[in-house]
Amino acid sequence: MRNLNHETITEAVLARHVDTADPRLKEIMDSLIRHLHDFAREVHLTEDEWFQGIQFLTRCGHITDDRRQEFILLSDVLGLSMLTVAMNNDKPAQCTESTVFGPFHVDGAPHYELGADISNGAHGIPCLVRGTVRGLDGSPIAGASMDVWQSDEDGLYDVQHEDIDHAQARGILHTDEQGRYDFRSILAVPYAIPHDGPVGDLLAASGRHPWRPAHLHFMIEAPGYQTLITHVFRSDDRYLDSDAVFGVRQSLIADWKQQSDGTYLVEYDFVLNPVDGS
Amino acid sequence: MRNLNHETITEAVLARHVDTADPRLKEIMDSLIRHLHDFAREVHLTEDEWFQGIQFLTRCGHITDDRRQEFILLSDVLGLSMLTVAMNNDKPAQCTESTVFGPFHVDGAPHYELGADISNGAHGIPCLVRGTVRGLDGSPIAGASMDVWQSDEDGLYDVQHEDIDHAQARGILHTDEQGRYDFRSILAVPYAIPHDGPVGDLLAASGRHPWRPAHLHFMIEAPGYQTLITHVFRSDDRYLDSDAVFGVRQSLIADWKQQSDGTYLVEYDFVLNPVDGS
Repeated sequence: MRNLNHETITEAVLARHVDTADPRLKEIMDSLIRHLHDFAREVHLTEDEWFQGIQFLTRCGHITDDRRQEFILLSDVLGLSMLTVAMNNDKPAQCTESTVFGPFHVDGAPHYELGADISNGAHGIPCLVRGTVRGLDGSPIAGASMDVWQSDEDGLYDVQHEDIDHAQARGILHTDEQGRYDFRSILAVPYAIPHDGPVGDLLAASGRHPWRPAHLHFMIEAPGYQTLITHVFRSDDRYLDSDAVFGVRQSLIADWKQQSDGTYLVEYDFVLNPVDGS
Repeated sequence: MRNLNHETITEAVLARHVDTADPRLKEIMDSLIRHLHDFAREVHLTEDEWFQGIQFLTRCGHITDDRRQEFILLSDVLGLSMLTVAMNNDKPAQCTESTVFGPFHVDGAPHYELGADISNGAHGIPCLVRGTVRGLDGSPIAGASMDVWQSDEDGLYDVQHEDIDHAQARGILHTDEQGRYDFRSILAVPYAIPHDGPVGDLLAASGRHPWRPAHLHFMIEAPGYQTLITHVFRSDDRYLDSDAVFGVRQSLIADWKQQSDGTYLVEYDFVLNPVDGS
């Protein structure tokens, strides 16, 4: 213990964790410590690089507040978020796929009746969204809770506008007896994730763009079914193959059709996995 | 790119980094991404656990300010700091070993003449510290800059006292023509690293104590020599074999001798590595 070197220190750190009460925490920390140490040895991390890492995390912490979550952005752009989602949402192929939650969901969004306009003042081209929520067996799910959120035509969510203190382009609806839903909102557009902070600097240094293809967020909950967190993407988007957060799934892409009056219509049917499924 | 799963996503993320301008950054990020993904897969990280990780990092960020650095504490307790120090300070055996920098150094400490009392009001039993600074060939190093810092008898550094706004028990001295140094300060005592935040919670959950054995910090700089960042520990300390940050080296332990008047004396001779050494 008094003469550890950069090879032997790993086992010494692991040995210090033998009294961890929760075996799952021990499993996670043991693996984390091994991989963290292996990483540092593999690249022969210098002390200056170590300190740059400390400063990077500090900047992430200091830019994070109740309207911005830089650590989720970091996890997103490193693919860790989508990896975690994919690993934990293995479902029958007929079920709607899951994708990243993202940092812009807000608890306690306003409730709306079916058919309502949830944009609530957000700027954008009007868009009607409709479809059904069904179980894996095809039966309609009545009363499913749909929490919907999206950015406006400037590519910003309501919480990103410092001068907006109420919910815009987000809301909670419930499917009708036939499992149908419909609501009015605005056309989703591609947007850059917040890139004026450390994650943006990392993307720039890595030669990566910060853009996400246009999408609507959905979180759908119904008793007896696994909660579905997903997006619906636009088939005509230029960033479908280079989403900054790796969230695109082919099955989640829909045609958003422009109507004769200039507004848009998108239809998407969701299929939930029963809790005892998969 | 539109149908990534939790195995294929890693290569997709790496492929997105091919345009990284700095090859060293690419090397570091590639390794980091591989190990981060391997860790998540190895433990089958759940979405809830992922979010707990996000919340943990957020707490670290929000408790960090100009007086507290939770990310360095985290790196320290996970052994990453000492691993990095050990890996980058491979020196001839006769040279003084390096150890962790820690989060309590402050730039711009006051300058003192040799023999001065650097405690500057910090509470503790008086202690005289003296010795020499020499090169690997035994030649004394005149005018070497010694930046010294330590905690008080309560185990707190000046910056941890909210009511203290000036330097206490820290200062910069320079060796004399014979490479000698001496200064007065206070007796170093064991202390607990700050554990009222997320790192403390992690230690508690891991069944680990937050204590460090008593030590004096030194950063010694002289032209033509590698900068030495190290501690001198007390041989009678109960935590020498369980330092919360894995910083103890046998060669850095000295006898702190109580004198007839109750004060202490510690003598330690430092040996610096020439820049062209090792």
